[in-house]
Amino acid sequence: MTKKLPNNELERIANTTMADVVEIRLREYLKTSAFKPGDALPKEIELANSLGVSRNVVREALSRLRMLGMVETKKKRGMVLARPDILGSFERVLDPAIIDEHTLRDLFELRLTLEVGLADLLYLRKTAKDIAELEQIAKSQKVTGDKQTFRIQHEIAFHGKLYQMTGNDTMSRFQSMLLPVFGYLVTLEKKPIIGKVSHLDLVKILKEGTKEEFRQGMLQHLEHHFKKIQ
Amino acid sequence: MTKKLPNNELERIANTTMADVVEIRLREYLKTSAFKPGDALPKEIELANSLGVSRNVVREALSRLRMLGMVETKKKRGMVLARPDILGSFERVLDPAIIDEHTLRDLFELRLTLEVGLADLLYLRKTAKDIAELEQIAKSQKVTGDKQTFRIQHEIAFHGKLYQMTGNDTMSRFQSMLLPVFGYLVTLEKKPIIGKVSHLDLVKILKEGTKEEFRQGMLQHLEHHFKKIQ
Repeated sequence: MTKKLPNNELERIANTTMADVVEIRLREYLKTSAFKPGDALPKEIELANSLGVSRNVVREALSRLRMLGMVETKKKRGMVLARPDILGSFERVLDPAIIDEHTLRDLFELRLTLEVGLADLLYLRKTAKDIAELEQIAKSQKVTGDKQTFRIQHEIAFHGKLYQMTGNDTMSRFQSMLLPVFGYLVTLEKKPIIGKVSHLDLVKILKEGTKEEFRQGMLQHLEHHFKKIQ
Repeated sequence: MTKKLPNNELERIANTTMADVVEIRLREYLKTSAFKPGDALPKEIELANSLGVSRNVVREALSRLRMLGMVETKKKRGMVLARPDILGSFERVLDPAIIDEHTLRDLFELRLTLEVGLADLLYLRKTAKDIAELEQIAKSQKVTGDKQTFRIQHEIAFHGKLYQMTGNDTMSRFQSMLLPVFGYLVTLEKKPIIGKVSHLDLVKILKEGTKEEFRQGMLQHLEHHFKKIQ
């Protein structure tokens, strides 16, 4: 990565617009002046004057911060600093059609890593109700068989429920954002690969087994994916 | 989460600007028309005409896509679809000062989950050279003791190196983005908590032990963090 940097850096400067510069300056300003959520920003015209740029450029930069959820407009108070939706813009760019192969593979591995690490949170927070729901999902899979569309839907439903059971909203949302990436990768597989440990087996472990048994079960369930990345 | 949605949604509509609408339309258009990286976008004026909005609004929306890395300007070709930097805008908003407590806790758990899941990739890709470097980092820690600033720096160096050893650039960058969050959380601790398994112990396992021994070692190393989230 370090070796590629000089070139990228040179190109980036050539392509930098005034809005890029103002956006960076504004973020630095908000940070160094210790703005807190709810604090009102200076007026557009004041920002333009002190930066020595046009109002249009300031508006463009503020529009970006608005998209990131860092600022919002309040009645009577104007622009204020907001609590950003940290995954919002990540969601915007997570389109498998425009992400390069290398990054897709990285994201695939990231998901496998999370999935193996999930046991600890699951065993802290799982409830009988959640397990019953998970079991329903796993059972319905057996009925519909292995047609590809159903298979992907079931994968999504089952693993999505597991993440939800961790009680971690951010992680749960993060994984649901990664789904298009995995849907995309699964469609590249010629035929369904069924792991040694099925979804129903995993439910059984969650009910009766230990955290470590669940982790080992998950590793076996994902075994064919791990083989792919070797 | 679902219960809160109606309110948020209502507020969001009230606060929607033309740039928000045009941004969404443009992203949908690029997606449904199956634009690929390198494909040229219609001219600003054409987009403005077909959407029936001013050029300023189109420019504002394009500026956002540009910030996300979804479009870039090429000499002679104008705006083209680009491969976005998927973590770029995530990085922009990851400031512990403006993230709410709930999300900070979620991110903390997300990192713990990754750390426990890391063993598989580590054992696929670790090299003798990497382990030697990791050992150097762990040893230097012993010398400087437990002063808080040093301690945080060492935590960062050691765990950062572990992520780098996975060969997964995205995950490695993701964890380095999360660091300000953990730096922030660690400063809230009154005194350093040393786990049963030290960094040097983890290095020893990486050298001589199995993947599962490493995972158990990591779990013990992180034990006091897991206790916190119970």
